Amino acid sequence: MKYELFYWPTIQGRGEFVRLALEEAGVPYIDVARKRNGMAAMMAAMKGDAKPAFAPPFLKAGTLTVAQTANILLFLGARHGLAPRAEAGRLWAHQLQLSIADLINEVHDTHHPIATTLYYEDQKKEAKRRAADFIAHRIPKFFDYFERVLQEPGRRGGFMVGARLSYVDLSLFQVVEGLRYAFPNAMRRLEPGYPGLITLHDKVALRPNLAAYLASTRRIPFNEDGIFRHYRALDPR
Amino acid sequence: MKYELFYWPTIQGRGEFVRLALEEAGVPYIDVARKRNGMAAMMAAMKGDAKPAFAPPFLKAGTLTVAQTANILLFLGARHGLAPRAEAGRLWAHQLQLSIADLINEVHDTHHPIATTLYYEDQKKEAKRRAADFIAHRIPKFFDYFERVLQEPGRRGGFMVGARLSYVDLSLFQVVEGLRYAFPNAMRRLEPGYPGLITLHDKVALRPNLAAYLASTRRIPFNEDGIFRHYRALDPR
Repeated sequence: MKYELFYWPTIQGRGEFVRLALEEAGVPYIDVARKRNGMAAMMAAMKGDAKPAFAPPFLKAGTLTVAQTANILLFLGARHGLAPRAEAGRLWAHQLQLSIADLINEVHDTHHPIATTLYYEDQKKEAKRRAADFIAHRIPKFFDYFERVLQEPGRRGGFMVGARLSYVDLSLFQVVEGLRYAFPNAMRRLEPGYPGLITLHDKVALRPNLAAYLASTRRIPFNEDGIFRHYRALDPR
Repeated sequence: MKYELFYWPTIQGRGEFVRLALEEAGVPYIDVARKRNGMAAMMAAMKGDAKPAFAPPFLKAGTLTVAQTANILLFLGARHGLAPRAEAGRLWAHQLQLSIADLINEVHDTHHPIATTLYYEDQKKEAKRRAADFIAHRIPKFFDYFERVLQEPGRRGGFMVGARLSYVDLSLFQVVEGLRYAFPNAMRRLEPGYPGLITLHDKVALRPNLAAYLASTRRIPFNEDGIFRHYRALDPR
């Protein structure tokens, strides 16, 4: 059985957190919507399923369909050694992932504070206000939290959960990458305050499977249709 | 061992989804921050934990601390028969809960579209635009989805997951209650289109444990410090 990942074919978006886990685990998968007629296949899968997804991404594993990014990672983490096996560690990894999910929702709302049904240009003034607050208060609040977890006395290996890499580390790598793309000026100012997080990012980037993926055409470049978007007006010097 | 729930003492907020599960399951718990010196106890617990929560609610079960609302429900669901035991059903329930979490985030942003660090009054104009979009597009999109799940052919019992009540049903009860409080005019127009969802709400309200809880002083009334807030400007006739 090959996994089938269903996600928008032209963006990293939320699907990228799943792609990173599949790539690190080295398991074969089909990125369905990027294949010929793939969008039609994705739409049919969304319509036809008795346990439908509210939105992509969703993952088919044989007869099982799993949706919601953090839920897919919960599933893959247990199957491919990307999270602790025991209940306490599994819940702790998932808890961290759900806080990352909250951060990602807030990233999205920096360019869409009013409505996803409107263009960025139609809510640009509000986006500037929201992005300014996001940079001043929200990135530091989330980063303080992740850094605190990394700097907890007794933590070994520099990973977020236990002594081994988990999907949480992969997701935080992507958060740093994405925020660097969207808010390069803000990140230049903020990064020196978070040495643990940046070290983690750099370490994840060197994993052989990850490095190969990032250098491949499977890695879609960041762009202004995804979650992490670079608009100069939202990232003043 | 008695569970200890840590959440803001004067609002329903996200903690209410956990309270509903604990009440329906009939398990004893301490709502820590509502006790004498409870806020200080909550702050100390947040500071002192080696696996800290990003924010309340969090639940202590002996030596285990679990945070993030949906994650707490995943934990309680498995322990108290509020979710299927098998992996497929457990992931499906959690997937639905995470879509409810997304909806709840959007409810929050109807009154705080720009920044949680600002008062509603400082973002009222933006809130009016966001709430209008939320009522016109987002409530219908989420409700269409939940109704579709309820109306799926072969579904028995009128519950969201399997043939028995789960924490998903309790959470949807709370969503309907909250939206009725926040947007009574909008809900009056929308509800006739969602007979399955409203029937589910009414059925949950009649569960003996739930009904007793709702009639007790343990149920904090809705107010304008919580997630579901009623501002007349955001809910035009």
